[in-house]
Amino acid sequence: MYKTEAIGKVSKDAPFEKMIIGREGTSDDDVEIDIKYCGYCHTDIHLVNNDWGFTTFPCVGGHEVAGVAVKVGSNVKDVKVGDHIGVGYFVDTCFNCEYCENNDEVNCIKGITSTSCGHIQHGRIKTDGKQTYGGWSKKMTVNRRFCSIIPESYPLEKAGPVFCGGITMFTPLYEYNAFKGGLKVGIAGLGGLGQMGVLLAKAMGNNVTVISSSARKIALANELGADNYVAQNDEEGMKKAEKSLDLIIDTIPASHDINPPLNLLKKKGTYVVVGVAPEPFQVHAFKLLTDQVKITGSATGGMKITQECINFVAKNNILQKTEMINSFDEMNNVTELLNKGNDSGLRCVIDIEKIFS
Amino acid sequence: MYKTEAIGKVSKDAPFEKMIIGREGTSDDDVEIDIKYCGYCHTDIHLVNNDWGFTTFPCVGGHEVAGVAVKVGSNVKDVKVGDHIGVGYFVDTCFNCEYCENNDEVNCIKGITSTSCGHIQHGRIKTDGKQTYGGWSKKMTVNRRFCSIIPESYPLEKAGPVFCGGITMFTPLYEYNAFKGGLKVGIAGLGGLGQMGVLLAKAMGNNVTVISSSARKIALANELGADNYVAQNDEEGMKKAEKSLDLIIDTIPASHDINPPLNLLKKKGTYVVVGVAPEPFQVHAFKLLTDQVKITGSATGGMKITQECINFVAKNNILQKTEMINSFDEMNNVTELLNKGNDSGLRCVIDIEKIFS
Repeated sequence: MYKTEAIGKVSKDAPFEKMIIGREGTSDDDVEIDIKYCGYCHTDIHLVNNDWGFTTFPCVGGHEVAGVAVKVGSNVKDVKVGDHIGVGYFVDTCFNCEYCENNDEVNCIKGITSTSCGHIQHGRIKTDGKQTYGGWSKKMTVNRRFCSIIPESYPLEKAGPVFCGGITMFTPLYEYNAFKGGLKVGIAGLGGLGQMGVLLAKAMGNNVTVISSSARKIALANELGADNYVAQNDEEGMKKAEKSLDLIIDTIPASHDINPPLNLLKKKGTYVVVGVAPEPFQVHAFKLLTDQVKITGSATGGMKITQECINFVAKNNILQKTEMINSFDEMNNVTELLNKGNDSGLRCVIDIEKIFS
Repeated sequence: MYKTEAIGKVSKDAPFEKMIIGREGTSDDDVEIDIKYCGYCHTDIHLVNNDWGFTTFPCVGGHEVAGVAVKVGSNVKDVKVGDHIGVGYFVDTCFNCEYCENNDEVNCIKGITSTSCGHIQHGRIKTDGKQTYGGWSKKMTVNRRFCSIIPESYPLEKAGPVFCGGITMFTPLYEYNAFKGGLKVGIAGLGGLGQMGVLLAKAMGNNVTVISSSARKIALANELGADNYVAQNDEEGMKKAEKSLDLIIDTIPASHDINPPLNLLKKKGTYVVVGVAPEPFQVHAFKLLTDQVKITGSATGGMKITQECINFVAKNNILQKTEMINSFDEMNNVTELLNKGNDSGLRCVIDIEKIFS
């Protein structure tokens, strides 16, 4: 067990403070990372505020980690000291189930151990607390399997969010055949996820339609390179776009009716939900029978596809706008910034060296 | 145009009567069929009662046709006089769209012409009425494309319903990889469609679970060869079966909550709706994200898969229970019989020779 500095809370209502946490030392299968940057996303807000009721304190957030390997276990042959390393939403799984064996660790049948506030159960990660401590910290040690290698060319301060929003959009594009291009892809909602979706789908060579509630984001869609824009309050535009898309990825985190965008799908098209709308979706059997659309969901991705994602993002120099957080004051006032960020596509990233200096 | 006898109604509230209808003669691309048997299914009740508001009168039902080729157009090389012929839910499509070109005629982008009460639009079928006349008739003429060849060995009186309920269940089993066996397949609802589903899925070599509201149909499920039975009101049984199935086909025509059966699907499993539940289904985004199940629907099938279906059913000697209708009195009292039939899996079939004798 070694000690390292971290940014955490001692209770739900406490402000962020610098704390010293204990992490299990680096084993033969691990990589020890000096963390340079770590994202602060909406999920972190929920975790550190115990909105979901399972957070224990003290708690340290952060699951969009970008750092540098400083120690590498003797069994790890494909990572060397100095490599840029990314860590995303989870840091341990069972290794033995059909999903783990198929490089689809995120679906581990026994459950993932989340990077922060995660249930410690599979034995490869240990802390001096009751849950995992996230990446808002100077250092962390992670089993090689859950490390992605960030290409040297890619700006490290942009990399963290790729392991959350980036892989969330990359996985359904990959799984539903947009990776090789040539599809007509709809992206519903143009917040942070939606913008990443447009950039990825375009870089893959698809024709991309942004589906938004109004015409308000048309300039942003054009700037991102979208080919078409459909505003749901434009009846004529919606009618014209009917049955035109092969794949729609719905990033909208608020409750909404999926039937208007569903009508834009071709027969047998696929509708993938990645935003967590609180109210259930409603779909008629008749729509399913006549159009045979598939409605499904996707959540981050396994480790193999995550490596493909960061390689692809680096190769195509896909860069999301990031707002740097350099002080504890900024940490404490981040909700406002994040809400602004969600609309503009901005990602908040903590500069770990600066915040501790 | 030739004349033939048919069973029809002159208005919504009229009883069935024998009528003389006119059908366009047999062209070079057509097959003329002496109809021997034709099913009477729930859809027919809705059509002849104008429940959906688009029926014109006089109207002749029937879309589960089994007969014998008596004349074959000169361009038709693969059907000969004397062949047993089946016709299902549709008798014309555009031939040119991406779906028609892919032998997926049921999804024709311009719309199918239904076998009875269908919109006459593509030019290959004509009648002396405003809509198509169905198979409750001594004779019909159909373009070769919409004829299936019924293997000689298969009892002709059992064949009609294969082109409706049979293909409805065969298509999703085929499309979602159960045709080669080895899957864990759930069949929700054990009416006529459900029973056909169990027989087909078993004959394909799958492990089959019947999902029903209560234990009431367990003996029937065993008789059909189902491997497992889960009653939705058995909490423990439902818990035990959680995440055990690769594919579920939901045949339930009444409004219902799909979430309990959805919980029986493995992650990434497929849930196919084939019953027309009147109320919309409700599904949470969270379920879609965590389990990545696919929810979709299916409706009959294209002509290539329909031929495969009748071949498979004949090869495996799959026989549904049928109740023969031999008189106009029975026609007029069929609703009660059909309701009984739906529960027992019974299919009503009109003996065309007998009813006109």
